[in-house]
Amino acid sequence: MTQAYGELERIFRRLALLGEASGLLQWDMAAVMPEGGAAIRGEQLAELRVVAHETLTHPRVAELLDRAERDEAGTLEGWRRANLREMRRGWRHSNALPADLVAAMSRSVSECEMQWREARKANDFEGLRPRLQRVLDLVVESARIKAAAFGVSPYDALVDEYEPGADAASIQATFDQLAAFLPGMIEEIIARQARGPAILPPRGPFPAGRQRALAEKLMAAVGFDFAHGRLDTSHHPFCGGVPEDVRITTRWDEQDFTRGLMGVLHETGHAMYERGLPAAMRLQPAGAARGMVLHESQSLLVEMQACRSREFVSFLAPLAAEALGGAGPEWGVDNLHRLYTKVSRGLIRVDADEATYPCHVILRFRLERALVAGDMKLVDLPGAWRAGMRELVGIEPPDDRDGCLQDIHWPGGAWGYFPTYTLGALAAAQFFEAAVAAVPAIPDALSRGDFAPLIYWVRQHVHAKASTDSTAAIVEAATGRGLGVDAFRRHLERRYLAR
Amino acid sequence: MTQAYGELERIFRRLALLGEASGLLQWDMAAVMPEGGAAIRGEQLAELRVVAHETLTHPRVAELLDRAERDEAGTLEGWRRANLREMRRGWRHSNALPADLVAAMSRSVSECEMQWREARKANDFEGLRPRLQRVLDLVVESARIKAAAFGVSPYDALVDEYEPGADAASIQATFDQLAAFLPGMIEEIIARQARGPAILPPRGPFPAGRQRALAEKLMAAVGFDFAHGRLDTSHHPFCGGVPEDVRITTRWDEQDFTRGLMGVLHETGHAMYERGLPAAMRLQPAGAARGMVLHESQSLLVEMQACRSREFVSFLAPLAAEALGGAGPEWGVDNLHRLYTKVSRGLIRVDADEATYPCHVILRFRLERALVAGDMKLVDLPGAWRAGMRELVGIEPPDDRDGCLQDIHWPGGAWGYFPTYTLGALAAAQFFEAAVAAVPAIPDALSRGDFAPLIYWVRQHVHAKASTDSTAAIVEAATGRGLGVDAFRRHLERRYLAR
Repeated sequence: MTQAYGELERIFRRLALLGEASGLLQWDMAAVMPEGGAAIRGEQLAELRVVAHETLTHPRVAELLDRAERDEAGTLEGWRRANLREMRRGWRHSNALPADLVAAMSRSVSECEMQWREARKANDFEGLRPRLQRVLDLVVESARIKAAAFGVSPYDALVDEYEPGADAASIQATFDQLAAFLPGMIEEIIARQARGPAILPPRGPFPAGRQRALAEKLMAAVGFDFAHGRLDTSHHPFCGGVPEDVRITTRWDEQDFTRGLMGVLHETGHAMYERGLPAAMRLQPAGAARGMVLHESQSLLVEMQACRSREFVSFLAPLAAEALGGAGPEWGVDNLHRLYTKVSRGLIRVDADEATYPCHVILRFRLERALVAGDMKLVDLPGAWRAGMRELVGIEPPDDRDGCLQDIHWPGGAWGYFPTYTLGALAAAQFFEAAVAAVPAIPDALSRGDFAPLIYWVRQHVHAKASTDSTAAIVEAATGRGLGVDAFRRHLERRYLAR
Repeated sequence: MTQAYGELERIFRRLALLGEASGLLQWDMAAVMPEGGAAIRGEQLAELRVVAHETLTHPRVAELLDRAERDEAGTLEGWRRANLREMRRGWRHSNALPADLVAAMSRSVSECEMQWREARKANDFEGLRPRLQRVLDLVVESARIKAAAFGVSPYDALVDEYEPGADAASIQATFDQLAAFLPGMIEEIIARQARGPAILPPRGPFPAGRQRALAEKLMAAVGFDFAHGRLDTSHHPFCGGVPEDVRITTRWDEQDFTRGLMGVLHETGHAMYERGLPAAMRLQPAGAARGMVLHESQSLLVEMQACRSREFVSFLAPLAAEALGGAGPEWGVDNLHRLYTKVSRGLIRVDADEATYPCHVILRFRLERALVAGDMKLVDLPGAWRAGMRELVGIEPPDDRDGCLQDIHWPGGAWGYFPTYTLGALAAAQFFEAAVAAVPAIPDALSRGDFAPLIYWVRQHVHAKASTDSTAAIVEAATGRGLGVDAFRRHLERRYLAR
């Protein structure tokens, strides 16, 4: 390891550790913090971000990057060459923005997130609007500054933070392909399911403690190690923490166990990705998760591809009946599988089935592009949301609580994030198809609750790559093809329209 | 506000926020972190400390301090003059130590703390010894460096971190005064209690959930605001967090509710101090708690002075009986008060009554002074502990688990901390005596569970002062006398030997 590069590793190690400290403060804010701690937590997070920003934008870092790229890049071996590239990527994002903008963003995001919790409960979009506008203004300001620096559009500059290399034009092209077949397919699935046996909903209440015990058993089956992670509750389920201590959260509904359970399995997929990142590159940019498309592909691989398969449901059904004290035909494999693969036009993205989910994402992609471009005003968001839902999903929310207030992303400053959910779903289908082609025993293993063959395959082909390559290259190397809609389409046809 | 001073306020604000982030990481480590997260948490904490250390030891800070002291000190108003003095104090402590020593200390403390948990369970002092030696070596190295810089002894340099201005000679003088009357008084109390009615122990089990509900009710009575704090569990009870979000922890014993309950009330006293610190000085050195003597005085004021008084126990007894499903004479006020004022020679400091507690502290003071001075080796600690217990408390521990392994302080790097417990007990007695003299209604209010008059008095006379003055000056202004043993002695006589 040469001189400038070695110093860069020490600096980026510090940045990673500061980021992890911020991550824990955020986990705590969502999972355990009393509400009175919100304002000072916002200050703490803002200061940590400013310290990280000052560290990365110090002139010494620019000098070291230049020197390392000029004199040392050719001599770097293995993942360290990719690491230098990822260092530059992080530097470009951070260096584009002035420190006061970073601090203002952090603070206004903390405030807006806290208010969103109340505003959503109270169905009060107008009450949230001033703070949301402040967040949007700062997002747009950041996006424009970066756009000018990177030579891309402001929206592309935003997307690039979550999914390096993605851009609105190619997302649009992919979404157009989906839009070309999905509405007809949804129509067909719904009609077909209407002709099938009626779904018998298991009757609650299902005490949270029992749901939790069952969820922990399933997490362990997937491979989650409780010596290296926790399961907690929060308003909006998420996966935080660090590879050695992954923190996933969920929420429990005592009337309906099915959602919370799949929510946990979804987050467990995220957790497995974090746990599977290579220890040798720990705390370095090349060792981090590649981006949100691959991250989401791992949660959906576990939830949608594996856990909603007939094979896994045949393992789950008796366990669920035992854990939740259920008996009768509603706890049978056929009924539970019908329940877990039911397609319907719903209002809430996080509750959407895999067939209608892309429609929710396409709506958000469309709206956030318009808001960032200034083609739409926030005051018009609720109306545009209702119109878009009617057009894309086929139903209209009765209020903003179940409309444009449902997601934390925009109040949380995550603009340009939504498309990664659907790109992740496409990647999940493509990975699962390739994994099963390579290891035909996977479905049978899932029917015994054995995730080892599947996880082993993705560890090698996805997790171990971390950020040493692009998402596109990782997908292509793992599946033999570029990321596209075909495997996802075949998956939907197999699961919903076969026979 | 002038120029150099204003810049210093911004720098110390950052230091405070970084310290609060570290504090949350530590709370999390004690209260919720899975064991697999320990190593990386140590790295995170070490890095945060190094960042803070680099910030405070940056040449610019020395320059600003010099300029502010030379040109601006005379023009600073109110608490800002004290703030400049406290900035210099913090700077002196931090600037004395090289960054790599700070990082090494942080890391070895994290490792040693984690191992202490196992070693205590396993009664394995020899297993802990190498890591404890490493911590001690680093403590001694730091102490020597500071001692040379401040012109004091190494042990005094350590004490000064926890209690500014305190020194071994005056602690020794105070402890000698205690040692002159305490052994005889303990003898007398024990003999007297032996002649009194036998104590009837309430019989468990007392489910942790019910104990918790009762504890929360009592915390609220003291004035704890759950919108600004939490109660959790940890191996070693402590008070962490920030004034807006105070985190106290305890441990529950389902066979004996009395300890956990008083533990919570003790930590609630700490929490009230944090909550009562002046908002105007928030995030500045002058606005922080003065030191561990006043901190402990506030926990003991609530626990020992208020909550173990006959008046408060008369409020507590029926509540406890109701909450824990108790009935019969063991739940009567007389019996519970006898239970809560029982004096006995025990092995465990944290379970000790207020009369024997100073003996535990004197032992630790004596041993840590010898270890820091190099007059004793760690390998000899278990034996010296047993001998000291025999001499000072009158009993000998059968093993190290209940001997020299019982406290987290030394593995946690807190050498020079123990004396503050007893100095705090003296201050608590002195404050309570002065508060009751000024507001005679306080005892009667406590019998109704009304802490408002007591808390109002300490808010004004202690909390509001934060670090604007020395402990000695705060005690003297509040009570009309310097800190001494007299009020404590009178308190013991009144409570244990009157009639």
